Amino acid sequence: MRPSSSASDPGLFDEVLARGRVRCAVADPAWLQAMLDTERALAEVQASLGLIPVAHAEGIAGVADASLYDIAALGRSAAGPGNPVLPLVLAMRSLLPEEAGPSVHKGATSQDILDTASMLVAYRAMGPVLDDLSSAAQAAARLARTYRDVPMAGRTLLQQAEAVTMGLTAAIWLVALGEAADRLVEVRETRLAVQLGGPVGRLSAYQDEFAEKLGLAAPLVPWHTNRLRVADLAGALGAAAGVIGKVARDVTLLAQTEVGEVSEAHPGASSSMPHKQNPVAAISALACSAQAPGLVATILASMVQEHGRAAGAWHAEWRPVRELLISAGSAAAWLSECLGGLTVNEEAMAAHVALLPGLDLDGATVLFVDRALQAYEEQK
Amino acid sequence: MRPSSSASDPGLFDEVLARGRVRCAVADPAWLQAMLDTERALAEVQASLGLIPVAHAEGIAGVADASLYDIAALGRSAAGPGNPVLPLVLAMRSLLPEEAGPSVHKGATSQDILDTASMLVAYRAMGPVLDDLSSAAQAAARLARTYRDVPMAGRTLLQQAEAVTMGLTAAIWLVALGEAADRLVEVRETRLAVQLGGPVGRLSAYQDEFAEKLGLAAPLVPWHTNRLRVADLAGALGAAAGVIGKVARDVTLLAQTEVGEVSEAHPGASSSMPHKQNPVAAISALACSAQAPGLVATILASMVQEHGRAAGAWHAEWRPVRELLISAGSAAAWLSECLGGLTVNEEAMAAHVALLPGLDLDGATVLFVDRALQAYEEQK
Amino acid sequence: MRPSSSASDPGLFDEVLARGRVRCAVADPAWLQAMLDTERALAEVQASLGLIPVAHAEGIAGVADASLYDIAALGRSAAGPGNPVLPLVLAMRSLLPEEAGPSVHKGATSQDILDTASMLVAYRAMGPVLDDLSSAAQAAARLARTYRDVPMAGRTLLQQAEAVTMGLTAAIWLVALGEAADRLVEVRETRLAVQLGGPVGRLSAYQDEFAEKLGLAAPLVPWHTNRLRVADLAGALGAAAGVIGKVARDVTLLAQTEVGEVSEAHPGASSSMPHKQNPVAAISALACSAQAPGLVATILASMVQEHGRAAGAWHAEWRPVRELLISAGSAAAWLSECLGGLTVNEEAMAAHVALLPGLDLDGATVLFVDRALQAYEEQK
Amino acid sequence: MRPSSSASDPGLFDEVLARGRVRCAVADPAWLQAMLDTERALAEVQASLGLIPVAHAEGIAGVADASLYDIAALGRSAAGPGNPVLPLVLAMRSLLPEEAGPSVHKGATSQDILDTASMLVAYRAMGPVLDDLSSAAQAAARLARTYRDVPMAGRTLLQQAEAVTMGLTAAIWLVALGEAADRLVEVRETRLAVQLGGPVGRLSAYQDEFAEKLGLAAPLVPWHTNRLRVADLAGALGAAAGVIGKVARDVTLLAQTEVGEVSEAHPGASSSMPHKQNPVAAISALACSAQAPGLVATILASMVQEHGRAAGAWHAEWRPVRELLISAGSAAAWLSECLGGLTVNEEAMAAHVALLPGLDLDGATVLFVDRALQAYEEQK
Repeated sequence: MRPSSSASDPGLFDEVLARGRVRCAVADPAWLQAMLDTERALAEVQASLGLIPVAHAEGIAGVADASLYDIAALGRSAAGPGNPVLPLVLAMRSLLPEEAGPSVHKGATSQDILDTASMLVAYRAMGPVLDDLSSAAQAAARLARTYRDVPMAGRTLLQQAEAVTMGLTAAIWLVALGEAADRLVEVRETRLAVQLGGPVGRLSAYQDEFAEKLGLAAPLVPWHTNRLRVADLAGALGAAAGVIGKVARDVTLLAQTEVGEVSEAHPGASSSMPHKQNPVAAISALACSAQAPGLVATILASMVQEHGRAAGAWHAEWRPVRELLISAGSAAAWLSECLGGLTVNEEAMAAHVALLPGLDLDGATVLFVDRALQAYEEQK
Repeated sequence: MRPSSSASDPGLFDEVLARGRVRCAVADPAWLQAMLDTERALAEVQASLGLIPVAHAEGIAGVADASLYDIAALGRSAAGPGNPVLPLVLAMRSLLPEEAGPSVHKGATSQDILDTASMLVAYRAMGPVLDDLSSAAQAAARLARTYRDVPMAGRTLLQQAEAVTMGLTAAIWLVALGEAADRLVEVRETRLAVQLGGPVGRLSAYQDEFAEKLGLAAPLVPWHTNRLRVADLAGALGAAAGVIGKVARDVTLLAQTEVGEVSEAHPGASSSMPHKQNPVAAISALACSAQAPGLVATILASMVQEHGRAAGAWHAEWRPVRELLISAGSAAAWLSECLGGLTVNEEAMAAHVALLPGLDLDGATVLFVDRALQAYEEQK
Repeated sequence: MRPSSSASDPGLFDEVLARGRVRCAVADPAWLQAMLDTERALAEVQASLGLIPVAHAEGIAGVADASLYDIAALGRSAAGPGNPVLPLVLAMRSLLPEEAGPSVHKGATSQDILDTASMLVAYRAMGPVLDDLSSAAQAAARLARTYRDVPMAGRTLLQQAEAVTMGLTAAIWLVALGEAADRLVEVRETRLAVQLGGPVGRLSAYQDEFAEKLGLAAPLVPWHTNRLRVADLAGALGAAAGVIGKVARDVTLLAQTEVGEVSEAHPGASSSMPHKQNPVAAISALACSAQAPGLVATILASMVQEHGRAAGAWHAEWRPVRELLISAGSAAAWLSECLGGLTVNEEAMAAHVALLPGLDLDGATVLFVDRALQAYEEQK
Repeated sequence: MRPSSSASDPGLFDEVLARGRVRCAVADPAWLQAMLDTERALAEVQASLGLIPVAHAEGIAGVADASLYDIAALGRSAAGPGNPVLPLVLAMRSLLPEEAGPSVHKGATSQDILDTASMLVAYRAMGPVLDDLSSAAQAAARLARTYRDVPMAGRTLLQQAEAVTMGLTAAIWLVALGEAADRLVEVRETRLAVQLGGPVGRLSAYQDEFAEKLGLAAPLVPWHTNRLRVADLAGALGAAAGVIGKVARDVTLLAQTEVGEVSEAHPGASSSMPHKQNPVAAISALACSAQAPGLVATILASMVQEHGRAAGAWHAEWRPVRELLISAGSAAAWLSECLGGLTVNEEAMAAHVALLPGLDLDGATVLFVDRALQAYEEQK
């Protein structure tokens, strides 16, 4: 007998690669709860319209709790139909009086439930992602303010070029993190939508009420095989991961032994080399963010979905959407730790910048810092 | 001696893989003209602010014409500095009176010019892309209207499921194409921005005037190594390519010999099998759109740019941005041809749908079609 | 307190997306065991050379059992150093007499252990992958033999072209599956190597003995930042996934309602549409194989590793290597199920081929089938 | 009228992104010549077997010269059939006596010609790629020999760790470059094969002679939709690009102003900052190699090809195969320039290594260098 996979991945690598609260927000229980929330919302809307008895909807609400179900067992039954919705519907019905059974999942198709649940999962998981991005931005703002006028070597093509300030360096990080967050919020609020077409689009009459109950957007028409919403989510997460990677890369470079201009609060220990100060948070942020481009490519390539429901390309999205949330979220969590405890070595900066020709910091550098900080303060 | 590359690619595959007007819009002359437009705008703004003589700006405007330059020669000189901006500046100066030389490219860094030019190229190339997407949408709207009530087999997982209408099929295409275009317009109008930091950010004072003159957005601070704007462009193009691929995939499936529900106006000839009716436009749209996911991944992976200018990752963007515009644009051009001439075989549709159980088309299907058409008409 | 992630993913989607025995072969316990096997082999080689006491090596062998450790706890301690090796070494030492402590992990660096363990995991996980590929090939051989002379419509560009045989169709599948397996075996036997450089390459003297003990190849020099071996593994798995996807795609197309030339033994049930016969195994194989290209891209992009150990790019490999084994392995498991129970509808084939012009099957078609079968038999 | 694309891309970016001889080896004339060589070889084999008159084969050989054709015109006619083979066949026939017409392209299908030509193009283009890899390896060997015993700081996670030697650093580069080249040669000699199935596999009888004449491998059965050979090529090129990127990354890091341990022979000039010494060759190698992962992903995703010829996925390969050859080849060309002129600053190395604890270079480091050099010498 196949050993239960529940014992399989207790998390040997998770503290590095699936950092922070996002991990739980996309784990199996969160998915199951989102599926149950979807079935519940459907029933409640149908009850409010008189399409099913109110008592049935109340019963459904009563069993819409993930802790009532054996996830591994649902998973094992998912192979037959190709997804876990049908097993869940059967399990829900088994917990309800027989006459309420037909009111569960009434008129819906599996993809309605799973697509809506995936949007709920994404919506909820973006909470921790945005929180961590926000902490990282706050730390960048602090650095920009504190080191507003501290000269450092500007570097291009990995060569010292002319002087900038540490304030400008941090301000550019701040703006990038803020823009990435803005787009994520935009996608969350306008592009994450319910799915409710049923096998032939018969459920449209109450799509808007369904959307309102779940706090998601309502689409014009079903989007079973128009995956633009998923692509928009992927694009925003992939771009956020890229921005995080840029900031983390800068930290690892500035923390090099030979540069020594910044150091992390809790550098990684080396068992054999105690003199080393590995910037583990920045390194891990890079590792997490590097997962994103390939995952975005998988999601984009999966957009080519046949007819009314794809033969494989839909199923192909599930894993990368989850992984992409982890990628961006973990990278954000690490970057927040990294910048939150970053120490700036002004002496090292001064020593490097003193060697540069053309040190004539003018008003523009400071202007950019102030502009970035002002925009940040206004938006808070 | 290395043969001039000008003879190298006359376009053996271009009519298939680089279809339509987008090809010229991203070709070398278009890039060179965009670089010249950028240098000219910079000079004109500087002249208007009294930073350089007006006569110099007029002189620069007079040589800001791509036809005056030998592109291959500029390209050959690009290897030294690593990009073609410095050779172009030298070539411009050689066409001007000696005293005007310092007014060319004054205060700018190469990346200012090349980034701004790439945004101009993208802005301009999105014209043909959007035109072709618009033609495709128009054709989809026509199909949705004409076949609003014509039943056809709905298919899920490549199996006949229940009845839908050809109108609904086309309406879903229409909505997807419209959403893809909306995002492209949003990116074009809000995210394509000038770059004007100079080596140390000294040019900020007239960044807004520079942006206005070129019709691009003005960033808060320079974005030399914050590549979110490029990522947003890539995400929107990649998503559009995916949507196009979905529609084209449906056409190829509906055009199968055994299905025979649609056919293209100009199916491809087969040299040996005259009975074949290859849906060449849809096939080519699929081929073009399939380029996009990998290119988006390259652009996202290139976001990790060091310090103030990246050692490789910036250069790594140039080709995929160009290719991605070609991918999405060519796919749109092919889809426009495909849908524009699509013939629907109502008899085949009727024969298939007649075999399906549960044929009870209700109002919802038609409602969706009407909603999609209404939204389309309102936006036009 | 962060909830233990051990409860997080009991496997809601695993029966679809992480099919077969490969899942356990790459799960956390398998990784931990591989790390322990590596530490044990190192100690045994060192003891045989008199570098540590034999009793210490025996003690280490005695604690080299994954069931003795709390994986979640190891994982939680991995964040500090950035990988789980140091926590494991400490945990091993805590189970041993104090004087044996220094003999654990003697002279090795974390990456030596983790890289060697990842090669062991890959080596072992390729067992199930190759078994399932072999079953699929066996089924393809059966189909090629059984339907050697059964005409069917050859289809190009999704149009019926000229007649082929079902035997040729299956023979082409057979050859493709065989070639993919051949390359996987080649990579497994020649490219999966131990890593044993230590922080400064001091362990080389017994690298060969170490490799022999673990059944892996011995490299010429350490490959800490030469990731060609990982890339070769990725390339072979990605190519195998692609081949599987091709066969599965053919099955989904031949199983279309309108074509009806094949059907699966256990088609997926539809809750609402009992007449549907969804080819779930082929669909799932497609979904699994679609994960591969993006994962390969991530691994290739991660090859750019700095100096003697990368700051992020090494860590970035861990997840995609695991996921890629799952992708290829699950796809193979599904394809084995799909082909193993595939029913061929000769009547449908005959009806379609009868309509084709130019039906003149000559010897070449049969020759190809026989050649493919003969090569298959010889290799078994 | 659409302007001829022959004027479109004279090469504004080619000296940076399409460096060296590989560019011409994959350009349109090279493709056309390979198509002509394929048609010629087919005719000559058929003539030798008495299937067509010898005079016809001689006539075909006489017109198998790319300079006789208007590539742009062929390209324009390619859109109809979806590839340029049919226009070429018509153009060849127009240059021959009418009775020889049917002997051109006899029995072949377009994909036979284009696939074989693409293998020829790849075979030939791998010449320059391997030459440049070989030059780079030679330079690495020189560095390993010259600096065999010169201590330098070993660096892990971008922190100084313990001492290694410059010889070891270069030896690891040398081994990586050699392994990458070995796999490329293996793929070239065993996996690049002719395609000759014809529409229904009727040409098999002389497939082996055809392969021999062209110097390519002969497949067991046609591989029209078994794209493993293309995937193997892609995997080998992608891995080679990754190895090159690793070496180039090391150079850019060692060349940092603050490290200063190496410098390029011809560092890039900066118009405004004459003190900068940009390692342009290494930077450009990184830019070129960064194209590869996404292109490999596109090729792998395109392996899912329908039935006997794909509706789009085959066409989707053409561009990325060409681009991938350019990516790997240009990266190799730049790396050869970079390493060929690399200057090592022993004083800087000595200064850095002096600060490290634990400087006790033992025999193992030197052993690895000698082993790498010995293997290199033996293989030459």
